[in-house]
Amino acid sequence: MDSKVILLAHGSGGKATHQLIDDMFMPRLNNAFLNELTDSALLPVGDIKILFTTDAYVVDPPFFPGGDIGKLAVNGTINDLAVCGGKPLYVSLALILEEGFPFEKLDVIIQSVAEAAREAGVKVVTGDTKVVGHGSADKIFITTSGIAVLHPYTSLSPKNIRPGDKIILSGSIGDHGIAVMLEREGLELKSNITSDTAPLHKMAEEIMQEPSAIRFMRDPTRGGIATTLNEIALQSQLGITIYETAIPIKSEVAGASEILGLDPLYIANEGKLIAIVDPTHADNILSIMQRNRYGRDAAIIGTITDDFPGKVILKTRIGGSRIVDMLAGEQLPRIC
Amino acid sequence: MDSKVILLAHGSGGKATHQLIDDMFMPRLNNAFLNELTDSALLPVGDIKILFTTDAYVVDPPFFPGGDIGKLAVNGTINDLAVCGGKPLYVSLALILEEGFPFEKLDVIIQSVAEAAREAGVKVVTGDTKVVGHGSADKIFITTSGIAVLHPYTSLSPKNIRPGDKIILSGSIGDHGIAVMLEREGLELKSNITSDTAPLHKMAEEIMQEPSAIRFMRDPTRGGIATTLNEIALQSQLGITIYETAIPIKSEVAGASEILGLDPLYIANEGKLIAIVDPTHADNILSIMQRNRYGRDAAIIGTITDDFPGKVILKTRIGGSRIVDMLAGEQLPRIC
Repeated sequence: MDSKVILLAHGSGGKATHQLIDDMFMPRLNNAFLNELTDSALLPVGDIKILFTTDAYVVDPPFFPGGDIGKLAVNGTINDLAVCGGKPLYVSLALILEEGFPFEKLDVIIQSVAEAAREAGVKVVTGDTKVVGHGSADKIFITTSGIAVLHPYTSLSPKNIRPGDKIILSGSIGDHGIAVMLEREGLELKSNITSDTAPLHKMAEEIMQEPSAIRFMRDPTRGGIATTLNEIALQSQLGITIYETAIPIKSEVAGASEILGLDPLYIANEGKLIAIVDPTHADNILSIMQRNRYGRDAAIIGTITDDFPGKVILKTRIGGSRIVDMLAGEQLPRIC
Repeated sequence: MDSKVILLAHGSGGKATHQLIDDMFMPRLNNAFLNELTDSALLPVGDIKILFTTDAYVVDPPFFPGGDIGKLAVNGTINDLAVCGGKPLYVSLALILEEGFPFEKLDVIIQSVAEAAREAGVKVVTGDTKVVGHGSADKIFITTSGIAVLHPYTSLSPKNIRPGDKIILSGSIGDHGIAVMLEREGLELKSNITSDTAPLHKMAEEIMQEPSAIRFMRDPTRGGIATTLNEIALQSQLGITIYETAIPIKSEVAGASEILGLDPLYIANEGKLIAIVDPTHADNILSIMQRNRYGRDAAIIGTITDDFPGKVILKTRIGGSRIVDMLAGEQLPRIC
């Protein structure tokens, strides 16, 4: 990508985002914590270690089936902490509002923030509100940052991943992206597709009780499971094989994806996690996950291999194999 | 303010912002940490206490004499931590970019972020980048959050303030607001006015070496010293007297304010702090401040009194007295 200006693709979470990070942010801001490029930074503070993360939310529209930008922002931050082995404690809330945004809608969003914080057991402890003129922002943007303490029994890193490890996905793919897309486009597919936005800290904690069974976790948001699995393949310098028939997807989401011409492997999820696990514990971890309300449809979707380092291969329904690359371009702008 | 929609005034930091916080945010998000309403939240994590703060920056234009949105965002977060007695350690960086924003300009901003972080001795450890379509945001918005450890010898609170305490301001008022305003409006006043954006953590640390001499600190940003002093009067339930002739202001800033019809007491500063100090230590604190490069023009500008609780009175140049209220409406939108 040789553009001289910022494109929507730079916010996709896919290739262009990675290039921006590699070419501009890393050389300028270079430090050992940032260089890890995990969902949260693990930081020494006094004698302890904390996790710290931030995310900007610009989802369009701000209200969609299954949630709104407030719930999404809190859950997204909770999940970035949870997949790094954190017990989330505190969240900050920074609002950028467009002049003319209705009070009533803001109040619904703030209530969602409060409810999501309550469910996740975190406190919203600090905030900021800025307002820009009509036309200088689109309705509402929210940036949440979060702080967690590290669960003592955790040691998660892509460096822990070994050939033969199993890949567990906590449920069906594409629900969030398709729900937002249908709402944005005003499409009436007579579907009941809702966003999967949910806090995953409890599920993460439950599966981490098995010491060293979990090698690494990510939540596959922007760019979908395809992009997240590619990041894991790159960071571990191992290959990944996934099986199309093993990947949970709701028939309505599959149908809507087909109508919209979208590949569900690249569609954003907001309440799913991918865990890379020791194969001897995989079945046990899977059943722990399935007992959690947000993990009922969890499945083992693939295996780590040393055959094709840095690459993700999909074994298709009809028996073929294809390389699944990281998201190129921008499939679904402003999905989160 | 009985508006049913968000107005620019709700982002002013003045009365409308306070009303939004009191009417909507506090009832919904209510918790002991948030309720303190200081510049940073003081939070227990394990056995220690940390400070945590967040700020969204929407300054228009993003480049102005003396700095840019990147430098402003880092310094603003440093200062919110510093005035609460913190030693800043880590900063997060969330960008919302408008499609079409030039790479070259973004790179200058990221370099400013890096330089400001280096000067302040903090690391940018985590971040996020979102892009919205052309016309859905105005160029670039930045949200920074920050984490600090508390200096061990500090105990800052508006509850510590006593009648007779002195009010020290670390330098001249209005520089940032006027610099941005002149740049935005393209006004050629043949002035050399530059933003005062600067990190104040070292100055804050230096003056806190005197145990219990410092009762409380704030940085007077949006809404100017008038708004910050009103907040201090309300939180301490004491009165404040300030002397017009004692308040440092550059003649160029005073002149530009007059031409623009602005009251410099309400104009934003980005490199100033207000310290409420024990009167027996006031001269000593003042001279410590004046030895710091960002405090050369520091002055004692007033006194705490129990005469008119919750109010700020200005003794004018010509010998009169007037009540200085919190900022009402929006004098200078998008100043930070």
